[in-house]
Amino acid sequence: MNVIEFTPTREQYAWTFGGVEPVLRVKPGTALRLWTEDAFGGRLTSPHDRPSEQLDLHEVNPQTGPFHVEGAEPGDTLALHFAELEPARDWAASATIPFFGGLTGTDRTALLHDALPERTWIYQLDREREVVVFEALQGEFRLDLPVAPMLGTVGVAPGGREVRTSLVPDTFGGNMDTPEMRAGATCFLGVNVEGALFSVGDGHYRQGEGESCGTAVEGAMNVTLIVELIKGGAPLWPRIEQDSHYAVVGSSRPLEDAWRASQVGMIDWLHELYGLDRLDAYQLLTQIGEAPLANVVDANYSAVTKVAKRLLPQADAFGGMHRYLRDQARTL
Amino acid sequence: MNVIEFTPTREQYAWTFGGVEPVLRVKPGTALRLWTEDAFGGRLTSPHDRPSEQLDLHEVNPQTGPFHVEGAEPGDTLALHFAELEPARDWAASATIPFFGGLTGTDRTALLHDALPERTWIYQLDREREVVVFEALQGEFRLDLPVAPMLGTVGVAPGGREVRTSLVPDTFGGNMDTPEMRAGATCFLGVNVEGALFSVGDGHYRQGEGESCGTAVEGAMNVTLIVELIKGGAPLWPRIEQDSHYAVVGSSRPLEDAWRASQVGMIDWLHELYGLDRLDAYQLLTQIGEAPLANVVDANYSAVTKVAKRLLPQADAFGGMHRYLRDQARTL
Amino acid sequence: MNVIEFTPTREQYAWTFGGVEPVLRVKPGTALRLWTEDAFGGRLTSPHDRPSEQLDLHEVNPQTGPFHVEGAEPGDTLALHFAELEPARDWAASATIPFFGGLTGTDRTALLHDALPERTWIYQLDREREVVVFEALQGEFRLDLPVAPMLGTVGVAPGGREVRTSLVPDTFGGNMDTPEMRAGATCFLGVNVEGALFSVGDGHYRQGEGESCGTAVEGAMNVTLIVELIKGGAPLWPRIEQDSHYAVVGSSRPLEDAWRASQVGMIDWLHELYGLDRLDAYQLLTQIGEAPLANVVDANYSAVTKVAKRLLPQADAFGGMHRYLRDQARTL
Amino acid sequence: MNVIEFTPTREQYAWTFGGVEPVLRVKPGTALRLWTEDAFGGRLTSPHDRPSEQLDLHEVNPQTGPFHVEGAEPGDTLALHFAELEPARDWAASATIPFFGGLTGTDRTALLHDALPERTWIYQLDREREVVVFEALQGEFRLDLPVAPMLGTVGVAPGGREVRTSLVPDTFGGNMDTPEMRAGATCFLGVNVEGALFSVGDGHYRQGEGESCGTAVEGAMNVTLIVELIKGGAPLWPRIEQDSHYAVVGSSRPLEDAWRASQVGMIDWLHELYGLDRLDAYQLLTQIGEAPLANVVDANYSAVTKVAKRLLPQADAFGGMHRYLRDQARTL
Repeated sequence: MNVIEFTPTREQYAWTFGGVEPVLRVKPGTALRLWTEDAFGGRLTSPHDRPSEQLDLHEVNPQTGPFHVEGAEPGDTLALHFAELEPARDWAASATIPFFGGLTGTDRTALLHDALPERTWIYQLDREREVVVFEALQGEFRLDLPVAPMLGTVGVAPGGREVRTSLVPDTFGGNMDTPEMRAGATCFLGVNVEGALFSVGDGHYRQGEGESCGTAVEGAMNVTLIVELIKGGAPLWPRIEQDSHYAVVGSSRPLEDAWRASQVGMIDWLHELYGLDRLDAYQLLTQIGEAPLANVVDANYSAVTKVAKRLLPQADAFGGMHRYLRDQARTL
Repeated sequence: MNVIEFTPTREQYAWTFGGVEPVLRVKPGTALRLWTEDAFGGRLTSPHDRPSEQLDLHEVNPQTGPFHVEGAEPGDTLALHFAELEPARDWAASATIPFFGGLTGTDRTALLHDALPERTWIYQLDREREVVVFEALQGEFRLDLPVAPMLGTVGVAPGGREVRTSLVPDTFGGNMDTPEMRAGATCFLGVNVEGALFSVGDGHYRQGEGESCGTAVEGAMNVTLIVELIKGGAPLWPRIEQDSHYAVVGSSRPLEDAWRASQVGMIDWLHELYGLDRLDAYQLLTQIGEAPLANVVDANYSAVTKVAKRLLPQADAFGGMHRYLRDQARTL
Repeated sequence: MNVIEFTPTREQYAWTFGGVEPVLRVKPGTALRLWTEDAFGGRLTSPHDRPSEQLDLHEVNPQTGPFHVEGAEPGDTLALHFAELEPARDWAASATIPFFGGLTGTDRTALLHDALPERTWIYQLDREREVVVFEALQGEFRLDLPVAPMLGTVGVAPGGREVRTSLVPDTFGGNMDTPEMRAGATCFLGVNVEGALFSVGDGHYRQGEGESCGTAVEGAMNVTLIVELIKGGAPLWPRIEQDSHYAVVGSSRPLEDAWRASQVGMIDWLHELYGLDRLDAYQLLTQIGEAPLANVVDANYSAVTKVAKRLLPQADAFGGMHRYLRDQARTL
Repeated sequence: MNVIEFTPTREQYAWTFGGVEPVLRVKPGTALRLWTEDAFGGRLTSPHDRPSEQLDLHEVNPQTGPFHVEGAEPGDTLALHFAELEPARDWAASATIPFFGGLTGTDRTALLHDALPERTWIYQLDREREVVVFEALQGEFRLDLPVAPMLGTVGVAPGGREVRTSLVPDTFGGNMDTPEMRAGATCFLGVNVEGALFSVGDGHYRQGEGESCGTAVEGAMNVTLIVELIKGGAPLWPRIEQDSHYAVVGSSRPLEDAWRASQVGMIDWLHELYGLDRLDAYQLLTQIGEAPLANVVDANYSAVTKVAKRLLPQADAFGGMHRYLRDQARTL
């Protein structure tokens, strides 16, 4: 299998979906070994770093890409299978950023409060024990937390001539920040422009659901993924298939609308997989759906609807693409 | 251990939290074996039943109770440990009800659409295989789903002289509809009025997170619970402790506010358990929180914030009450 | 015309809609001259008063009433015509209350900020110049503001056995806090229980739309109103008719749902008045509707949809009840 | 005064803010006489036209522009004074578009309903009587409605390298759809990129507040505006000054967040104009603010906070720019 390695220079980072020339053209069936910088551009390295001094919110979530996928046309479905996510550093960072996060006033949830105090937490990675270490800034509390690498940001160029910041997710994917985007998962994205122009970034060594404070355990990541293309079949919202689950990610505000988008997306998927009538699928989803939040932080929030395959008859989503890519990944 | 059995007559059902005379007075430390009717009052028994003809939305979620807990005063904490939830019938029902549910216009999300078609699904319970059977109304699709009994509605009388429908959850608990309320869980509720006046009902043989269509696999339930009382310490929002997790339930609109309430509730709990500074707790929760939705259906939505105990140092919430009640339950 | 005067004693205030015995029984066609206490129970009298020390949020918006209207049955329409609203004191108060208001974290929009500073502003009323005087607490800024008396809280007992705080509006009316509720207006409310059991209170000497900080220019008010009853015809949400406008008030969260409720309510009203098809009414409303917010503060927000009569053909809402009451009021 | 006339060819329409080469470079102090096409690109001309056949939602709100303003740099304030808005045709159109509008399920408020029926209404303009004529599609109802020309879409290129559809408003302005944007108004927009790159379009012959069905009385418009530039002082959200009012427009979801943004924007403006402490400004705004909704339709809703100048001391916003431009306009 063809494997291409790519590490962007600092000048090559993309900060948007759309509006950027591709760094590479790749054929469907290609594997990529990519280096991705952390969400902060590597600028937070110590608990003494102040986010407001180090960060420019117009330059967070640097993207590795975009990649032009040969043959991809609007209406097609891009499949990205994440074969491996490997922390690229021995530490990671998280922070409270003024007027950013789920439990603070923001530019949009505009209130009269002063900003919460800004803080930076540095997590050391212990590769042997497979943990990152949380250290409280006040007091002596320390805690080992299992490493669970994931990608916060995966997306394609949006349609309608738009160029969108890598900070705000939408139908094109982007900064969905869901722990479901982990090694072993295949992400299906509708193609909006010729070549799809996908990019990835914003590695998290771990993240809780909802990502309350706005930043996960942010760390540079080595990403191995396989690119495939399905002609037609573009889903409205990003879909994820794992060995164990199907998932759909909706991104909007208020949070119930993000959830509704993911729910209707799953009802449509169940209809496609099993020929279920939409009302029957609505009923079935009501009894088997899982609804882990992704982020309640960005200008669009992201909600996930998942169903466990063990509860469902066997099916071949997108022609069995996930299983095929799983097998391909084992050959790398 | 003192065990009291109680099966309400039809006239004894309560339809509200508050505003109803207690059916019994119980001492802390009492176990109750209760029969609870299903959310529909047992009126949906066949796929031919039309919810709009059978149901009055002012009389759904019949409650068993309220029970007056001796010594309970405003500011105290009521602990209800669910020792056993046992389906009381061999079938259960679910339905789409006109202008009720998460993916339809409602009285509040008021739109110009006609109602979605109303439908009733009947699930047969197979006790041996521990499944309920989903049967699609259109086509031949059938599916066994594991039984996973839970209670939709658990609450106390609200404060401020209010009397609230058993359909809409709030700080006093009520119709939270979270799958976390299962056998083995202890629910902690702030007491608002003398005697607490708690009631339970709305058994579900299983339910997905979010309860999209508005009704779970609704079935009459035999409930065995132990009542305990903690002087003081009333949490603002309902808390749940399981052997594996701590959880807080927030109920409001929009959904992000329900989630925020549950998040701040959990930050407060982590502060109480470990003396963590609130910003440190915010950071920690960001990396370890789980956020399974409960319902996105009622006039107040319910969101859950959970943390797994295996990630945290050992602690004794409410003086170790959950472990104590777990032990007590084994003696029943 | 029969005019009854009523001034409640402090013990007679009602703090809820529903759950309280009527203070009087009145026949339709009766005029009432009522004294109403301010939202703070008269407890804020100086800029040195701290709301957190003076107020209990379970005892705000004291209501004068409830009044039992003879013959009123569920499904009927109560008409309350406000003939006169007259400030009952020469001063009024406003305040920022910790975790209450539109531009602060609250119990529901639960955030990690400290409360905004609490402040009390006292407004002197100049009856001759018909102004209240705003005095900034910092600096020398003073401003005369025209008196524009209105009632924040007008409602009936809710249905479904509920008892609801006078702080949170809903379909039964309550604390809608709209400047449309002024002298010359007729409010139409659906009756939910025998006798309707309406009450009024929470006078404002003036208020902006949205009531951002959560409290208007709050002052005791002498209220002269005429009670009438229309058999049947209960609107889902409160309606207001003025000489110049029709208005509907929706109360929910998020704010778009409050607005949607008021919009659909107005589409229904236009349909009733002119036989307009609902899609035609939707189109017409799009081009002529006014949408002044009422409050974005309470646990349910309130939004108003208004249409100007001068744009519409003449019509007789509720059989011309408003015009009739207007004429009656002139005889007082 | 320098007056430039510009009518775009069909190929020159812009469909985005940002991402488009300027059609002209203009100096501050220039007046422009512009022709703007209607939101539908002129494609709806008869009640028999079906929006789903005629429209592509990626090509609505064609923009006239963008114009590069010489000397404009990020952080500056662009002032656009609308001297005259003149209907350019004798008819206008409105429509219900499938899954678009305030009282229907949409791509984001994703529900299981079928689309509402799509309809097109054509309004004839009677220039002499200054009315447009509403004709119901069902029944005989006709109504003259006063012409009240306004621009739905006014904006600059966004920051952060983004390119945004002309359908969704945000901090850069765009499709705010507020009736406040009428002749005699000055709009102040923060400059994000060199040259500002502003454009205008989406003329409405009239519109109600909220724009419920999603489309106003949409008509081609001749726009006369004067461009000015203020160094520095960029407001976060668009501001509008009229002879009678100050207004701020916030655009977000849920609707309360759009409103909050406009409220905090106005508190900041009152602080700038009068040196008022922010809590005093919060209090004052609470009593004098008007809150007419703009649109509750787009992926971001728009809310307006207004204050009447007659209630306030005289002040010179942006150095008296509005009055200056008003005078300039009289010389055209």
